Amino acid sequence: MTLGEFDLIARYFSRPCRRRDVLLGVGDDAALLEVPAGQALVAATDTLVEGRHFLPGAPARSVGHQALAVNLSDLAAMGAEPAWALLSLSLPEASETWLQEFADGLYSLAGMHGVDLVGGDTVRGPLVVTIEVLGFVEVGSALKRSGARPGDLVFVSGWPGESAAGLELLSSGAATFASDDPLVRRHLFATPRLELGRALRGRASAAMDVSDGLLGDLRKLCAASGGGAGIDLDALPVSSRLASRFPRARCESFVLDGGDDYELLFTIAPDEAPQLVSALGASVELARIGEIRGGRGVQCLRAGVEVVVDGGGFDHFA
Amino acid sequence: MTLGEFDLIARYFSRPCRRRDVLLGVGDDAALLEVPAGQALVAATDTLVEGRHFLPGAPARSVGHQALAVNLSDLAAMGAEPAWALLSLSLPEASETWLQEFADGLYSLAGMHGVDLVGGDTVRGPLVVTIEVLGFVEVGSALKRSGARPGDLVFVSGWPGESAAGLELLSSGAATFASDDPLVRRHLFATPRLELGRALRGRASAAMDVSDGLLGDLRKLCAASGGGAGIDLDALPVSSRLASRFPRARCESFVLDGGDDYELLFTIAPDEAPQLVSALGASVELARIGEIRGGRGVQCLRAGVEVVVDGGGFDHFA
Repeated sequence: MTLGEFDLIARYFSRPCRRRDVLLGVGDDAALLEVPAGQALVAATDTLVEGRHFLPGAPARSVGHQALAVNLSDLAAMGAEPAWALLSLSLPEASETWLQEFADGLYSLAGMHGVDLVGGDTVRGPLVVTIEVLGFVEVGSALKRSGARPGDLVFVSGWPGESAAGLELLSSGAATFASDDPLVRRHLFATPRLELGRALRGRASAAMDVSDGLLGDLRKLCAASGGGAGIDLDALPVSSRLASRFPRARCESFVLDGGDDYELLFTIAPDEAPQLVSALGASVELARIGEIRGGRGVQCLRAGVEVVVDGGGFDHFA
Repeated sequence: MTLGEFDLIARYFSRPCRRRDVLLGVGDDAALLEVPAGQALVAATDTLVEGRHFLPGAPARSVGHQALAVNLSDLAAMGAEPAWALLSLSLPEASETWLQEFADGLYSLAGMHGVDLVGGDTVRGPLVVTIEVLGFVEVGSALKRSGARPGDLVFVSGWPGESAAGLELLSSGAATFASDDPLVRRHLFATPRLELGRALRGRASAAMDVSDGLLGDLRKLCAASGGGAGIDLDALPVSSRLASRFPRARCESFVLDGGDDYELLFTIAPDEAPQLVSALGASVELARIGEIRGGRGVQCLRAGVEVVVDGGGFDHFA
């Protein structure tokens, strides 16, 4: 197989752009894009390294999905509309099967959210995937980490921890990549919460996505907002899929420390919360897990008594 | 040394932004940026892999410089104004000395061109550096690869091939990273041609930067423009630094196949060329190396006779 770099880009990463705001896409030195008047550009980038962010041998379709999903999740956390993506792909060899599946995973998620791939770089090297997502949000309505105030309620969406549990099933050999176990599927194909991000604009006082674990990420949100938080361990959202497979303590640990479910963590004033909940209806589960306080750091409480929990967020160099 | 990921970002990659159009920089889920009205957003990304794009043990300052320079060169090739950068850094360990020097190289070049680092991601993995650069250009005045027409003259800026020669000196052990040999310095710290890119707006019919070798890149420009080209090997710009060290044939090979000098290759109508040359004055050397023709591909000529040359551009997977 002697597929060259430029053939590779032409064959797998040059699907036609659908957005009218792409003035020039893949194939020149840079992409030319049109940002709507009155909107701020939103830019995020995230990198996945084989053996660190995904298991060696993980399905290429999942790697393509995850590489975009982790970035879309950042835009969801800002309440932004995603528009364009750039891909930097370092890979050891140009396997056509792998590339086809990787591209399918990437384009499939991109298509669901109206995102066009407009540029990138393909090099030979260790398997490392970096995507940059660009989008926009009305100036002033972006969600930031820094707006939480004492008295605000702390919510988290959906079922955090499932992805980490799926990863453990795979790592321990209890499941294979081909398994239809919902925890495994959640790990391989978690969905970013773009709809929820939109709904939080103008309502949430602070927001971020849970990527390094709920507890560690809440600490970051508190630090950015200059406050502290107390969370009730009994209020943690533990899905029945999780609860039926693992003891309670293990479930809590998945929920508090697991990353990459792409759930959103946010704070909201108590009088805004009912409106939000009714606006969202049944479209997304929301768990009220605690509240913002003065002081610093995050206290974990059980029946009102502080409990020390292990872990607290993934740090690549700790 | 137990510097964590977030300490690392805080310590090395959180220098204050200077641009007023940065509404939110490093530290949230994404950056918020303000694109000037009437301007198109320009976006490019390039990846450097240790052992492939830079030598193992290369000075961190040079790696930081190169990672940004290769991206700024893409913006220069579009005639764009660079504004913001995002950094994805995968590195095996958090060496403080390495990080300090890498950051210095990156911020130093960024500062020279008014670019702010507004976001990124730092992960543990093989040494792979991806930067995305964002900038803008007036809609309609961007330089593309596709505008060359038969009869247009083909120019290249400066002294291509010096970086490749510097790399050879390092690879062969004829020089060390600490050498003040100008060819080695050129390899480690080549300068993107942003000023020239600006001057080409509205004048050049097509442009691209020379990153995979002059000959291979000219083929790409011709393919994008739907034409061919003939170049005169005797007109190739061979610097005296190169000519004094290598035989003529080797010099030509460096010039035709070497990459990463960040020179610009462009085409221009014959009646526009004198104006450009006089506008640029002595600020940059320009060599007229050939012209665009009908047909396809690039013919290399010596004294008007076609010559077959080896090589023809770097392809990561060929």
